[in-house]
This record gives sequence, C-alpha cells and structure tokens, in this order.
Amino acid sequence: MLDIPSAVVIEDESLRDGLQSEKRLFSVEEKLRFLRGMEECGVRRIQVGSFVHPKWVPQMANTDELFAALEPKPDVVYTALVLNMKGVERALAAGTRHLSMSISASESHNRKNTNRSLAEAKAEIRPMIERAKAEGLTVRAGIMTALGCAYEGAIDPAVVVEIAAMYGTLGVDEVNIADSTGMGNPRAVFDLVGRVRAVLPSGTLVSLHLHDTRGLGLANMVAGLQAGVRNFDASLGGLGGCPFIPNAAGNIATEDAAYALAEMGVATGIDWRRLGDLALEMEALLGRTLPGRMAHLPRN
Amino acid sequence: MLDIPSAVVIEDESLRDGLQSEKRLFSVEEKLRFLRGMEECGVRRIQVGSFVHPKWVPQMANTDELFAALEPKPDVVYTALVLNMKGVERALAAGTRHLSMSISASESHNRKNTNRSLAEAKAEIRPMIERAKAEGLTVRAGIMTALGCAYEGAIDPAVVVEIAAMYGTLGVDEVNIADSTGMGNPRAVFDLVGRVRAVLPSGTLVSLHLHDTRGLGLANMVAGLQAGVRNFDASLGGLGGCPFIPNAAGNIATEDAAYALAEMGVATGIDWRRLGDLALEMEALLGRTLPGRMAHLPRN
Repeated sequence: MLDIPSAVVIEDESLRDGLQSEKRLFSVEEKLRFLRGMEECGVRRIQVGSFVHPKWVPQMANTDELFAALEPKPDVVYTALVLNMKGVERALAAGTRHLSMSISASESHNRKNTNRSLAEAKAEIRPMIERAKAEGLTVRAGIMTALGCAYEGAIDPAVVVEIAAMYGTLGVDEVNIADSTGMGNPRAVFDLVGRVRAVLPSGTLVSLHLHDTRGLGLANMVAGLQAGVRNFDASLGGLGGCPFIPNAAGNIATEDAAYALAEMGVATGIDWRRLGDLALEMEALLGRTLPGRMAHLPRN
Repeated sequence: MLDIPSAVVIEDESLRDGLQSEKRLFSVEEKLRFLRGMEECGVRRIQVGSFVHPKWVPQMANTDELFAALEPKPDVVYTALVLNMKGVERALAAGTRHLSMSISASESHNRKNTNRSLAEAKAEIRPMIERAKAEGLTVRAGIMTALGCAYEGAIDPAVVVEIAAMYGTLGVDEVNIADSTGMGNPRAVFDLVGRVRAVLPSGTLVSLHLHDTRGLGLANMVAGLQAGVRNFDASLGGLGGCPFIPNAAGNIATEDAAYALAEMGVATGIDWRRLGDLALEMEALLGRTLPGRMAHLPRN
C-alpha cells in the first residue's frame, strides 16, 4: 500500500497568493466573505494576506484592516506573509500570531523579488525569525523556487537544504518548500522533502506549497504525502498564476486537493463540494474560469 | 527514493479515444498526418482507430482505409480497438497485428456501451481473444470503468480482478486497466494494479488507461509506475472526453506525460516539445483549446 497518512492540514492561500496578482481589487468585505465561506467549509488554516508595500502589491494594502475585522475562530489558524522586518512589525501591530516569511533558493529570483542576493536574503530573514519567535509567534519559514526557477532553471537541492538547516537552528515551527514555478516533479519532491526533513529537528513541520503550472500539482502532493508531509498550501479553484497565459494555473485547487485526499482516505475536515461553490463565486467576481476541476463537475 | 523504472512505453490514443466523440470528421489524410507526426516525435505505440459500427461512431468509419494507408514502420506498434467478433474479423482483414478489446467492470456501463450484461460481455470476449490469438495477433484485453463508473459509482476491485484473471487464463499479452471516468485516485490505482498483477502470469503486461477528469491523471500515472506499470495510454493535448463540459478532460496528455516522465528520469523516447506543436495543430483543426498543459507553455 502507498505509505500515506490518515489526515493532513490544508492552508488556503486564496486571499494572498491567489489574489495578489489580480488587477481587480477586493475590498475587506469581499475578502471577509470568502474567509467566512472557507471557515464554514472546514478550512482550518487560512493565509489572510501579506504585509508588503502597497505600491508593489496593491491587492494586499488592506491586510491590516482585514486582520482587524476577521473575528478569529478558536480552531482556525490565520497566517500572513512578510518579506522584511517592516512587515514583521506591521504584522505584530495587526495582532497576527502566525507568520510566514520566505526567501528564494534562486539568486536571480531573490534579486527580482526583493532586490537582494541570496546571502543578503539569508542574513535579513534571521532577525525577522528571531523577532517573531521572541514575540511568541509561530513562524513558518519558506524556500521559494525550491524545485526550479524560471530564470535559473534547475535549483541545486543542496542550496535548499542549507537554507532549511539554517531555519532549523533558528527554531522555526515549520519549513515550507515552495514549488513557486510548478517545475517540480514527484521524484524531485520526494527526494527534496526527505533531504530537508533529515536536517530539521523532529518537531519541525515540513509543508509544501505547490503550483500546478505543468499539471503535476496533485502528483507532487501525493509524493509529498509519501515523503511524510502533512501540511499543504492550496487556493480556491487553483487561483493564482498569470491570468494572461492560456490554461494558466496557480496553486493546486483547495477543493481538488481535498477531494483527492478524501478519495484516498486522508481526512482534511474540508467539505470540498461546498468549497467548489465558493470557487465558483470567486470565478463570478473575476469573470473567468479557474483551472480547478472539481468546482466544474456535477456535485452530488 | 520513489520506486519507479527507467523507461516506459506510451501508447497514443488520439486517433481513437481522442477523436471518437468529435463531431468534426477527420479524413484518412488528416489522420495520417497526425500519425506521421507522432512517429516523428518518437511515439512507438499508436492506436489507429476502432472497428466498430460506423453508425455509432462515425469518426471511426475510415479505420480500415487508414490501416491500408499507414505504411507501417518496423519499430512502431499500431493497434486497433474492437468490441465484438465482427470487429475482430474486420481487423484481421485490415491486417491489424495488435488488437485491443475491452469489456466494462460495470454492469450498467456494459449495457449502455454494448447492450450486454457483464456475464454476456465476459462470454463474448473469450472467443474474440481465442480467435485473435489463433491468428497470431498480440491481444490487449481491457477492463473499462475499473476505478469507478458514472452510473454505478464505486466498482468492486474483486470484479476487476476476476476479469483480469480470466484474461490471464486466456493467454492475453496485456491487461489494460482503464479509469474511463477519471474517478480513480493514486491509492486505488496502486492497490488495484497490485491485485491485478498478482493474478496474472509474470509475462503479462499491465497497462493503464487514465482520464484526467478530476485532475488526478498524472498522479495516478505515478502511482501506476510505483505499482510496476510500464505501459500507459495518452492522447495529444489530453484530447477526448465531452467537449461540452468546461475544463473537460479526456486522456492524460501525451506530451504532459512524456514531460513528467522525462523530468523524473523515465525515458519514453518521445520529444514532448515537438509533440506539443502537434497538439497545437490538433487544437487548430478542432477550433478549441485542449486541456494539456505543456503545449501551452513556452518551449525552449
């Protein structure tokens, strides 16, 4: 039998990774409606937004307001992404208790994303982690383009492992391996997860952030399951990615992932049928079809 | 490391499963153009068509003519599907050397597809296999809806295993497990392949025919690889399935499967980049975008 667990946790990133490139700006009320909808469908981890410069990501400008308005449920984890110390301070001020921060394994992507070298990025994230941990927050530290970079192509797994090891020594709660470009494949995911887990303390979670650009998102999720991953990121309808590429795909679709896991006997707590309806609401607002599958099939 | 092989064989079924539901009828010349294109891209098994009644599947009416015209290459296997003895005789007359025949594991689907009970279908395929084997043909015997039926839902794996065992005693060369509805999942695929292989002689190939309706096609392929499958069906661009469902998906896309396998270090002999161009030619003739991913991404 395939060695897979009986339960996993999905973090929905629709409101952050999903929306961040969308031109249509979502109000706090609209975002809250989706957040409430996800809670009602059983989503127990939600990435609410990011504390980044509104000039670069206008869609995230209302993240502080959104945190102020969200009326947290005790059994739901609300996370936010930050990319620098200023973001950490804004997140603390907004009352965020679970922070995601991230650097890229690719030299070029770090420069493109934050205008820093990989060495500079590693140096900068260290005090961010320390500050957040000192404030008692849980910290998830991510490694973007861990399975391939659009600028550099293949990424040396040793670079990823070294960043993960640094995160481990800093006492992060979770290391997130992000296939930002969807260039990963099941064999590479399985191998990389194994190498990353080997350098981390046993209590440190390893999570996977997968994009479905090449149709391998769910295959990579299953490889991650087999390698011991119990936390996965996803978004409604597979939101995310560039809207101007035919068949563009962002994250794996939350409802598709929850369906696939349920079929394999892996509990997520998510009602994927109702979540499919929420994905259709998102499509209606965006005015286009999202790549996720289950939302478009008859649900009975 | 994931237990996967170093090489597999993909059978392209664009000209049969891919086209059979398309309203636009393809001429022998058009089909030959795609057949040549696939050969040039390194496809080494091609399902050319089916010998079925032209009234039910008009697209397949020129299969005899196509076999007469195809100028076989010595390193390519050309197959055809038959569903009754009349089809076997037509295939023999057309000079086909590799026959696929198939019954469904679902009582309802058998009745819908061929107006027979499962027991009748099992009784009917037996002399078809014997006739083809007596003529020295290689026989692939398939089990449709092996992982779920649109009418009946879940299919008892024991029914699939029993059909496979019957095929084994009849000396077929290959047993094809078909997830005709795309309802399979990696765990179910892995388990079912294991059970089927256990009742077959060691020399009998087990192949997988996967549909990507729920986005699990490639994940199921990887599960099949892990379970020992070395032969997979696919079609250009993921052709097949109902053209009237948004995001409808047919087979797994040949170029996507070949890409994924290449990335995992599994050789197919197929140049997926060039095959992506052929998928775009198919799209141009059909006038719509196919669900496959790699054909739509920049190829360098």
